[in-house]
Amino acid sequence: MITVVLIGAGNVATHLYKAFSASEKVSVTQWFNRHRETLESYKNEVEIIDDFSNIKEADVYIIAVSDDAISKVSRKLPFKNRLVVHTSGSVIMHDLDKKHRRGVFYPLQTFSKSADIDFLDVPICLEVLDKKDYPLIKTLARAISNNVKRINSDQRAALHLGAVFVNNFTNQLYRVAHEITESQGAEFDLLKPLITETAKKVQNLSPYQAQTGPALRNDKKTIKNHLELIEKSSHKEIYELLTKSIKKTHGR
Amino acid sequence: MITVVLIGAGNVATHLYKAFSASEKVSVTQWFNRHRETLESYKNEVEIIDDFSNIKEADVYIIAVSDDAISKVSRKLPFKNRLVVHTSGSVIMHDLDKKHRRGVFYPLQTFSKSADIDFLDVPICLEVLDKKDYPLIKTLARAISNNVKRINSDQRAALHLGAVFVNNFTNQLYRVAHEITESQGAEFDLLKPLITETAKKVQNLSPYQAQTGPALRNDKKTIKNHLELIEKSSHKEIYELLTKSIKKTHGR
Repeated sequence: MITVVLIGAGNVATHLYKAFSASEKVSVTQWFNRHRETLESYKNEVEIIDDFSNIKEADVYIIAVSDDAISKVSRKLPFKNRLVVHTSGSVIMHDLDKKHRRGVFYPLQTFSKSADIDFLDVPICLEVLDKKDYPLIKTLARAISNNVKRINSDQRAALHLGAVFVNNFTNQLYRVAHEITESQGAEFDLLKPLITETAKKVQNLSPYQAQTGPALRNDKKTIKNHLELIEKSSHKEIYELLTKSIKKTHGR
Repeated sequence: MITVVLIGAGNVATHLYKAFSASEKVSVTQWFNRHRETLESYKNEVEIIDDFSNIKEADVYIIAVSDDAISKVSRKLPFKNRLVVHTSGSVIMHDLDKKHRRGVFYPLQTFSKSADIDFLDVPICLEVLDKKDYPLIKTLARAISNNVKRINSDQRAALHLGAVFVNNFTNQLYRVAHEITESQGAEFDLLKPLITETAKKVQNLSPYQAQTGPALRNDKKTIKNHLELIEKSSHKEIYELLTKSIKKTHGR
């Protein structure tokens, strides 16, 4: 049984808590948050603390707080030479105080309070400063996910950047499509099956192979019609840049 | 029983043929293609023709050929005053020869030869020039889909443009993420669950509500790190433009 102290009460911490609780191989012995009220509903399941001086010994301490707060929280932990990991995709491992054995436990997924996630499918990307700590962190990750991967810092940075493209930027394209359809009184909902299928297609094909459409075919007439149809100059810029990008990728 | 003559042998025609064949309310009486060899494997199920002079009477003629060929094919049909529809998202209804009763039967989905599609979920967007033709075309669409919608030409143009954003452009963002991860020896596969979840999230939330990430938070430090990390200037342009777009949408 691996004992874990969880620090933070945001979406990542909450989803991790639920996943660990469902595993027989992990015990969350304490859950820390500055404001203990936030965790009030869990008080019958786990010891809730809001004071670092009450923190007990555990195998792993997981800091799942906002990027800016990671360094500070790690300094405040009143012990040394224990394994402390953060869950961020973008914060370097060395932001953790050097008094600790350090690592990263990065679940590569978007978490929201409302939506349930099956953690078994969530890739967990692991880094450790000292390779002796890897077996423990790997066992911990495998207790909740079937998709555990050891990576280095450069790979994590690239994955986090890639995640911004496939998540935040993709979502913004959905937003633009929402604005365009609404402006003509058309239902954005009609695009939802296409959104699903577009994501599904690249599960088995590469994005290169999956590409279709006017930019790929260099269909100048349709591209011209689309540009005339777009009302907002900011949407036009996005259309032009991504059309150019597709043409370049496919050598048109 | 609605009788249909199908014209064309591309992905849309093939998926439509399969969907109609599975319905008891529709009979595809003839399937036309310029090159009859393409349809050879269907010859025991349906009459294959490659000469318009052999075309027989039917309730609906569906032209599912490339956008550029629709007008020409419609002129070649050796009859008048019958219901002829095309399946394109971007071609105007008046491109069909005016000797016909005209309409549009636009399945809003991306079709590929390999991937099976459940047509019941595919939105079918309908237009007719003469409203008397609507009940027939609606019955035909409902025979294969649970998501049938009457739209006008402006709405179809907006939906087709929106489809380019959520399908082609989104797929290009996946491609950029593929290039970025590969350049650091990280596995693009690790982003696939995130791609799935991003598409899933907007099935119930608006893209506005679903947005997260550094641009939304105006997290200048992470944005700066990302821009330093991006090697290709073309990727940097996309990052900057979509970051600006998110900030603008969310008033940052």
